[in-house]
Amino acid sequence: MNSPVIVLIEPQMGENIGAAARAMMNCDLSELRLVRPRDGWPNPAAESMSSGALEKMPPVQVFDTTAKAVADCRFVLATTARARDMTKPSFTARTAAAEISMRKNNGRKAAVLFGPERSGLTNDDVALSHGTIAIPLNPAFSSLNLGQAVLLVAYEILQTASENRLPQKIEDADSLPVTHERLLELFERLESELETHHFFRNEGQKPVMIRNLRNMLSRAEMTDQEARTFHGIISALTGKKS
Amino acid sequence: MNSPVIVLIEPQMGENIGAAARAMMNCDLSELRLVRPRDGWPNPAAESMSSGALEKMPPVQVFDTTAKAVADCRFVLATTARARDMTKPSFTARTAAAEISMRKNNGRKAAVLFGPERSGLTNDDVALSHGTIAIPLNPAFSSLNLGQAVLLVAYEILQTASENRLPQKIEDADSLPVTHERLLELFERLESELETHHFFRNEGQKPVMIRNLRNMLSRAEMTDQEARTFHGIISALTGKKS
Repeated sequence: MNSPVIVLIEPQMGENIGAAARAMMNCDLSELRLVRPRDGWPNPAAESMSSGALEKMPPVQVFDTTAKAVADCRFVLATTARARDMTKPSFTARTAAAEISMRKNNGRKAAVLFGPERSGLTNDDVALSHGTIAIPLNPAFSSLNLGQAVLLVAYEILQTASENRLPQKIEDADSLPVTHERLLELFERLESELETHHFFRNEGQKPVMIRNLRNMLSRAEMTDQEARTFHGIISALTGKKS
Repeated sequence: MNSPVIVLIEPQMGENIGAAARAMMNCDLSELRLVRPRDGWPNPAAESMSSGALEKMPPVQVFDTTAKAVADCRFVLATTARARDMTKPSFTARTAAAEISMRKNNGRKAAVLFGPERSGLTNDDVALSHGTIAIPLNPAFSSLNLGQAVLLVAYEILQTASENRLPQKIEDADSLPVTHERLLELFERLESELETHHFFRNEGQKPVMIRNLRNMLSRAEMTDQEARTFHGIISALTGKKS
């Protein structure tokens, strides 16, 4: 299993995509996904900067939304240089690597999101993640180029993966965390019911309230069974039998 | 004390010198020395690639031999991608960082040598060192660019030096996890509403279902605000204004 997937969101420079691919191959990762790359795909500048890495990987996949790019992933971490005003587990690159490795041993595919070069990830993308990664650097000079950020995260993952660990508990299918796709379905259903029931009293506040709800619920890392239970709760409370 | 010194021997591309300087500043290292840089010094391509790092460091020093460049150092490690036929302690980037850190605490200045982009260090330069550093990477794709090699070594040195983590974000009252008392109130209210709405079809299953619900929701480690929001969701879905 290729895990984690590396997801670059709105990358601007082809060179940075190529450097990220090279860094991934250096660290034995090979599944690269792009969301709305500025210059489209394929990109000759990326090819040349990758030093052959792009040719050795499975084809890069391109998506129009972050949600689609991580639809099959069960654990999603967002790299952020600055603290966000969200309650969310925050990892260093090293502790994140341990979390990802543990889940990989249990058959859970992970994704790591990287935002655009200048602006970083949007709060909406961060809210959809299970946790954040901040790479500990010199606080007076912490700006990393995109390829370097991917390198440090990928490097920590390789170091952790090659350490010898105890075999993890084998989990049955029912205890797998839900895929992101199903999680999003659940969020959308909940939000639509809340809309119907006039929960969002103020239209201007709605996007923030939705983000906060998603942030809170994504932290639970629900299993498939739990997501079904949550659907059942909505049905029961709204008086609809599911 | 600036330790370790980073020594680039016969670097070819100014861009790589700039990327190395940036990586050093990212990791709180600031003493860069060059031995016979191909394009002389200063180098405008290096300046621009360093994103301001070169301006913030003490001036780069240039030497005509490796021996002079490390004359004041008491511990010298040579980075090598391939094994050399020499009996010499060999470190990973992480174990090298620990060796350097220990010596720094004892007042011993260290240096890390990096060879030219294509060919790497000469055996003579390796022979002059106390040990070698090999960065553990994918053996099928281990070629790193010079700036990235400096980044990984500098990163490990910073991690060892700070050995412990980002300061945790100071939390304000609103981001504190809810007390267990309030959490239990929320659970009891939810369960009572579910009871009213005939969610628990089978009385025998009810204790297990309640345990599973509590398990799922407690994993979210809700804040006070989030618990209030969750109360609001229950009120909205059941058609009660809170």
